Amino acid sequence: MDFSLFNVLDLLGTVAFAISGALAAMNRKLDLFGIFIIAFVTSIGGGTLRDILIGATPTWMLNTIYIYFIGGVTILSIIFRNKINYLKTSLFLFDTIGLGVFTITGVEIGLQNDLDPIVCITLGAMTGTFGGVLRDILCAEIPVIFRKEIYATASLTGGLVFIILNNFNVNTDVIYIVTSLIIISIRLVVVKYHISLPTYRLHEEKSDV
Amino acid sequence: MDFSLFNVLDLLGTVAFAISGALAAMNRKLDLFGIFIIAFVTSIGGGTLRDILIGATPTWMLNTIYIYFIGGVTILSIIFRNKINYLKTSLFLFDTIGLGVFTITGVEIGLQNDLDPIVCITLGAMTGTFGGVLRDILCAEIPVIFRKEIYATASLTGGLVFIILNNFNVNTDVIYIVTSLIIISIRLVVVKYHISLPTYRLHEEKSDV
Amino acid sequence: MDFSLFNVLDLLGTVAFAISGALAAMNRKLDLFGIFIIAFVTSIGGGTLRDILIGATPTWMLNTIYIYFIGGVTILSIIFRNKINYLKTSLFLFDTIGLGVFTITGVEIGLQNDLDPIVCITLGAMTGTFGGVLRDILCAEIPVIFRKEIYATASLTGGLVFIILNNFNVNTDVIYIVTSLIIISIRLVVVKYHISLPTYRLHEEKSDV
Repeated sequence: MDFSLFNVLDLLGTVAFAISGALAAMNRKLDLFGIFIIAFVTSIGGGTLRDILIGATPTWMLNTIYIYFIGGVTILSIIFRNKINYLKTSLFLFDTIGLGVFTITGVEIGLQNDLDPIVCITLGAMTGTFGGVLRDILCAEIPVIFRKEIYATASLTGGLVFIILNNFNVNTDVIYIVTSLIIISIRLVVVKYHISLPTYRLHEEKSDV
Repeated sequence: MDFSLFNVLDLLGTVAFAISGALAAMNRKLDLFGIFIIAFVTSIGGGTLRDILIGATPTWMLNTIYIYFIGGVTILSIIFRNKINYLKTSLFLFDTIGLGVFTITGVEIGLQNDLDPIVCITLGAMTGTFGGVLRDILCAEIPVIFRKEIYATASLTGGLVFIILNNFNVNTDVIYIVTSLIIISIRLVVVKYHISLPTYRLHEEKSDV
Repeated sequence: MDFSLFNVLDLLGTVAFAISGALAAMNRKLDLFGIFIIAFVTSIGGGTLRDILIGATPTWMLNTIYIYFIGGVTILSIIFRNKINYLKTSLFLFDTIGLGVFTITGVEIGLQNDLDPIVCITLGAMTGTFGGVLRDILCAEIPVIFRKEIYATASLTGGLVFIILNNFNVNTDVIYIVTSLIIISIRLVVVKYHISLPTYRLHEEKSDV
């Protein structure tokens, strides 16, 4: 495993999602192994779904550095659990970096498999969001993807920018950085200004009143 | 992609499940992208599980017509949400067509992979029901498969008829139509006459009283 | 299919998980097919996840003996439902045998695919526990893996012992038996003496009071 920008960002995303999983599990008062399991599932969920859909062996099964990083980060999360909690903003930032990075890996691997651009963007969004969805289902919370924070929309927008830049043959590392920053910016701005997408109501119930 | 009966029915099923997913999401007051996500997952869930089990790349990743159809149908569902609601019977019919069609694709692809008939029937039922199960789990409702409507039973019966007709070398298009009509008829009759399967109770609690 | 110790234990695990699924479904008052579905999913869940991750066709799709065994055992579970209930201890034992056996199949298949030992242990734990997790999610109960019974820990410990014995070239059948007995013993002792792992609390809420 060489240390390209791609790999560094990928491990950063893995670490961020492991922390978010460990914190969510501690919030639910799960025991030691429950914390490890949630951290593990949150970290590998998106990439595993991506690799299964592509027909490849999941990355964490071929490269043990992922398991060791997840284990180490989970232990650190338990030790520094109260300090991390004061750093909620930086956790939110890491979580968003995770979303951005995993979106990129999904789009990238879709392109490497000659899939249609719209399929690549979809694959990117699934890779970026699935770990968090599993974490929330296992912790019995409303999946992050359905909260009002425009989570999936940030991922899809980033994926679209990735495809456009890629068509103009922009340098790959530049694409990664620009796309990540766009996803992070969208999510930060949306949460700061409480922007949300419209909802649509069926007026069935109203007519009953 | 040629327009064989198989493909026409397959797209019809995709459309029907997309509508049912969009309506379920609007009922839960999810935002714009929440509606798209649920419609997408409901539509592709069954076929994706089928393809993963077989070891093939999911159809929607190779043929973008599925994503465009799901997107278009979801937009139409949002625009005409109140009109569709008055057409609950036709929605129920479309949903049942979806169940029938996806059951057929599961059985068919099992046969093409030389699997045992009983495995083909099981694969058909998983293909037909999994999208609806995902929709209901994500919308936090009791999965359709566990309601009293004999949902999976209709699918399994249709799969059995498919295998029997196939053994008699009946024309494939005839098998598709006959099997679909059987699944649709079973579900219509069962819902109309409130037929349900027996339940079995453990009398543990009784002895406590 | 020859009747090696591996296969005998594998079917024993399948049967045990099918019984546990059928009983859980009857407890939730599901109808006849609901019971079959939960029994089936609980039985095949772990092995199917293992085979998908490895990129192999799930065992039950290639060998119909699994479907027939699950069907037969489910019917027997329904007929003798009240007698089985009196045998809760033996059910618990069978469930634990299932955990042990499926852990072994996961580790074994990981080794056969030349995966790293730590990946094999992880794969073993996923194989051993996933069926029970699916059963509990579908029955809307707290997943067994998160209860205080050190379920996953028993599996991981067994997997570790498997890898160590395998490194010393111990006879495979001996490894299977020793590892199974270790997993069973850990779970029995833990449940009998109410041993549990520590939990870690975030003291966020306290500071609000």
